[in-house]
Amino acid sequence: MPYVHIQITREGASAEQKAELIAGTTDLLVRVLNKNPATTFVLIEEVDADNWGIAGESVTVLRQRAAQAGPQ
Amino acid sequence: MPYVHIQITREGASAEQKAELIAGTTDLLVRVLNKNPATTFVLIEEVDADNWGIAGESVTVLRQRAAQAGPQ
Amino acid sequence: MPYVHIQITREGASAEQKAELIAGTTDLLVRVLNKNPATTFVLIEEVDADNWGIAGESVTVLRQRAAQAGPQ
Amino acid sequence: MPYVHIQITREGASAEQKAELIAGTTDLLVRVLNKNPATTFVLIEEVDADNWGIAGESVTVLRQRAAQAGPQ
Amino acid sequence: MPYVHIQITREGASAEQKAELIAGTTDLLVRVLNKNPATTFVLIEEVDADNWGIAGESVTVLRQRAAQAGPQ
Amino acid sequence: MPYVHIQITREGASAEQKAELIAGTTDLLVRVLNKNPATTFVLIEEVDADNWGIAGESVTVLRQRAAQAGPQ
Repeated sequence: MPYVHIQITREGASAEQKAELIAGTTDLLVRVLNKNPATTFVLIEEVDADNWGIAGESVTVLRQRAAQAGPQ
Repeated sequence: MPYVHIQITREGASAEQKAELIAGTTDLLVRVLNKNPATTFVLIEEVDADNWGIAGESVTVLRQRAAQAGPQ
Repeated sequence: MPYVHIQITREGASAEQKAELIAGTTDLLVRVLNKNPATTFVLIEEVDADNWGIAGESVTVLRQRAAQAGPQ
Repeated sequence: MPYVHIQITREGASAEQKAELIAGTTDLLVRVLNKNPATTFVLIEEVDADNWGIAGESVTVLRQRAAQAGPQ
Repeated sequence: MPYVHIQITREGASAEQKAELIAGTTDLLVRVLNKNPATTFVLIEEVDADNWGIAGESVTVLRQRAAQAGPQ
Repeated sequence: MPYVHIQITREGASAEQKAELIAGTTDLLVRVLNKNPATTFVLIEEVDADNWGIAGESVTVLRQRAAQAGPQ
């Protein structure tokens, strides 16, 4: 019965990584809450960096600033 | 006032089919709950098959396996 | 595979009405997109009138104003 | 801690406009609820006009009808 | 950056189980996509059984029928 | 046409504060994108602290630890 919606920034997650998120999340719900995998949905939504804001700025701007600042 | 969010896999739903989902869902809310269609939102989100997991696997994998297994 | 999220204001929808929304939405997805009902989720979320805004005001305020204005 | 999900029709919102929505929403949550901007997410989702229904019809159809009707 | 929204039926998940879902989901995103836990949100929403439909019926009805049918 | 979903932890936001979030968000969308307030939805969802995880732990645990650590 569970429905899981995972939103991540669109930064090149591969089909294999997405498969791993789907399998891992499903296993977690089976192990912790004994849910039926056959009716467990996991949806992954990839969001453009322009469209995801944190601390009042888009991820695009934050990534650019971090790149200019160079390695910490 | 109702807001309806319909998520389906991105598998070629036509504009006509989406229009039918919008009209049918709105009619249902008007009929059952006497809602005002003018302020009834219906949003349809189409999700890539790689990004939709059920029973721990992506729809892409499930579709491929079903195709290989041939007609039931 | 479809997942439908219906948000309505918390204004006394009965279990029967909610069952009708669930059945009607599922039938619509079967009829229009030939979806499998066994893996069709319909979730209904009831939202407090204080927490739902339209035209910049909460439904609570809008309902009060409409009540004071009397029948149209 | 707040998470804000803004859905708008895909009608050409610029990166600057989206940045303004992100900054404005974050400021609002800081001002009204004293939230920590560092853990305030604002996500903007742009939805195709075919996929957004209001009053039982898609925004595509509503826009076409308004265009044919000419200036009000 | 990830945001995860987990919807489960309201059937008595304990605070410990919910903590396990939060920790497990966060670890999965760190391991698979190298995400920063400090900006990883996991939200759990518990939905009444009357309000969750699958195969056209509410979970309430499905649970009652399964109880009447006795152990499989 | 916009739909805004604001999720905050359930920590006593007053009706006035929620009204301010609704008005402020609507004004922002009118100002930035010239949207029609009459068809602008703002929904506020208050989430229990047990059910909101950040950095792998629930807000309940994080608040308790902060309280024990005393003022910074």
